[in-house]
Amino acid sequence: MAKAAKKIINDPKKVVAEMLDGLVLANDGRIARVPGHAAIVRTDLPESKVAVLIGGGSGHEPLFHGFVGRNMGDGAACGQVFAAPSPDIIVAAAKAVHRGKGVLFLYGNYAGDTMNFDMAAELLEDEDIEVRTVRIADDVAAAPPERKYDRRGIAGDLLMIKIAGGAASELETLDDVVRVVEKAGDNVRSIGVAVSAGSIPETGKPTFELADDEIEIGMGAHGEAGVSRQKLLPADAVADQLMDKILNDLPFQSGDEVALLINNLGATTMMEMLIVNRRIRQILDERGIKVHRTDVGTWLTVQEMAGFSVTLMKLDDELKRYLDMPAESLGYSRM
Amino acid sequence: MAKAAKKIINDPKKVVAEMLDGLVLANDGRIARVPGHAAIVRTDLPESKVAVLIGGGSGHEPLFHGFVGRNMGDGAACGQVFAAPSPDIIVAAAKAVHRGKGVLFLYGNYAGDTMNFDMAAELLEDEDIEVRTVRIADDVAAAPPERKYDRRGIAGDLLMIKIAGGAASELETLDDVVRVVEKAGDNVRSIGVAVSAGSIPETGKPTFELADDEIEIGMGAHGEAGVSRQKLLPADAVADQLMDKILNDLPFQSGDEVALLINNLGATTMMEMLIVNRRIRQILDERGIKVHRTDVGTWLTVQEMAGFSVTLMKLDDELKRYLDMPAESLGYSRM
Repeated sequence: MAKAAKKIINDPKKVVAEMLDGLVLANDGRIARVPGHAAIVRTDLPESKVAVLIGGGSGHEPLFHGFVGRNMGDGAACGQVFAAPSPDIIVAAAKAVHRGKGVLFLYGNYAGDTMNFDMAAELLEDEDIEVRTVRIADDVAAAPPERKYDRRGIAGDLLMIKIAGGAASELETLDDVVRVVEKAGDNVRSIGVAVSAGSIPETGKPTFELADDEIEIGMGAHGEAGVSRQKLLPADAVADQLMDKILNDLPFQSGDEVALLINNLGATTMMEMLIVNRRIRQILDERGIKVHRTDVGTWLTVQEMAGFSVTLMKLDDELKRYLDMPAESLGYSRM
Repeated sequence: MAKAAKKIINDPKKVVAEMLDGLVLANDGRIARVPGHAAIVRTDLPESKVAVLIGGGSGHEPLFHGFVGRNMGDGAACGQVFAAPSPDIIVAAAKAVHRGKGVLFLYGNYAGDTMNFDMAAELLEDEDIEVRTVRIADDVAAAPPERKYDRRGIAGDLLMIKIAGGAASELETLDDVVRVVEKAGDNVRSIGVAVSAGSIPETGKPTFELADDEIEIGMGAHGEAGVSRQKLLPADAVADQLMDKILNDLPFQSGDEVALLINNLGATTMMEMLIVNRRIRQILDERGIKVHRTDVGTWLTVQEMAGFSVTLMKLDDELKRYLDMPAESLGYSRM
């Protein structure tokens, strides 16, 4: 059974507002609040650039609001916990980041986000601000390969934001940035495993129920059904299952170079993720797949949910270039 | 009641060995294993420098093993879960990082670590490798101010390692590095709050028991007794208590500039820490204390323990310089 909520918060109805205040302060001046809105923007934006606007529901910190910074998102539109930001927040955020070359909307493929970002895009087009959209859809558990773009976005978000941020700092046109980011999206695959539930701060209720000896492969970031519920397994067996699903999906092949990302869904230890990383590298070695770079950490959480996800992105020289650009934000920095 | 352990591991007796394999691989070539030992070393060490060796028990990842990298630790000696590394591991790690200018041992003030690092220091002195020691002792809950150096080391570790790494990359002598790091140690204060227990991977047992509606202020990183056990409180009230204990200890005063660090002990959400950060900044503003830089994240964990700690370090220009140097490691990077 999922444990009862025991969170250090004040008024459960104000968690997002108070979190945003704390987030802006924690950035040491690198971001500012968009006045009057649950949205944030970089304070060091150049005068002219293609803008990258990210965003989505809160409660997944550091995603998205923690990924605003140099060579990452230029701004973020922040919804309530597990809820899409409203169109007016997105419009305000887009205007705050716009620097004359159009705005890329980059967010996870969920119905509420799609509806609200699309509505905002229409409103912005009426004001002659060009908007293009890339929805992140990396969760192989969410739909079969032939419906790849019906999939949910999960921790592949970080690699996508990193590439978008790098490309948008160097490329001159929105079209060029979209081309690179879409290529990244075509080549990214993730899957998660849930071990125990988190709880929603406003209600204290767990996001799902899982027995004491059960795990679920492919469960979504809000408790959406996965591909199999099963007894707790050793780390290597879990890694084998996850990698099998990812590798056969693109498919990844001998000679490929990949970015590897292991994401903590909240309460899992880095020790567990590193033990899993050891097995993942054995599998990749056996398949002749080379790891170009690795990120192991806490990037997309579901409150105190235990579990993790694995992401692979197949890279070419262009994707490597933008992924490897130094980036800095509260939730992710790497030189 | 603490929940039962539900971890994604293989053989519980091999968690540290397998974790270290995964850790080395996750560093993308930036660190290497010291052959035959549970120790790691930077692969890009300059030919000549004062060396910084960190280390301690495993199970607190990313501390310490995740903090080896440029302008951070030069190497780490890694114990079993919650247990000090043995002297032979420390000796091997020290020899691997030594570059002719002596070695700083920098670790948390726990009896087992002190005994084993001291023994290793004696063995190294016999081989004419100069060693100096700074023990991190930042937990104000562990002993009264007059016995400051009897205190435990907690998340102040990160700031201390960062300053040591910066100083050792620039200063020419071990004496100079020790002087800076000791100054940092004199000026750092932390305290934590435990919300729920983690569990030990080898046994599955919780590290302590805390009722469903209780929290403990000042509890140590392994369940050591704190200063008060009490009912769950709102975030602002918790922040007030923690800050009161820290601020009055040094004491911090109007006009001081500080580094502020909020550390996730494992399963706490970034949302909670940011809500607390908001209140901490109100308190510091009222007291006329200026925040020079903030780090909010997961730095010193106790497996899946829920709770967090707050650290303040009073800075002067020299400490700012070394703290602000760009640093890169698996567990902490900032430009």
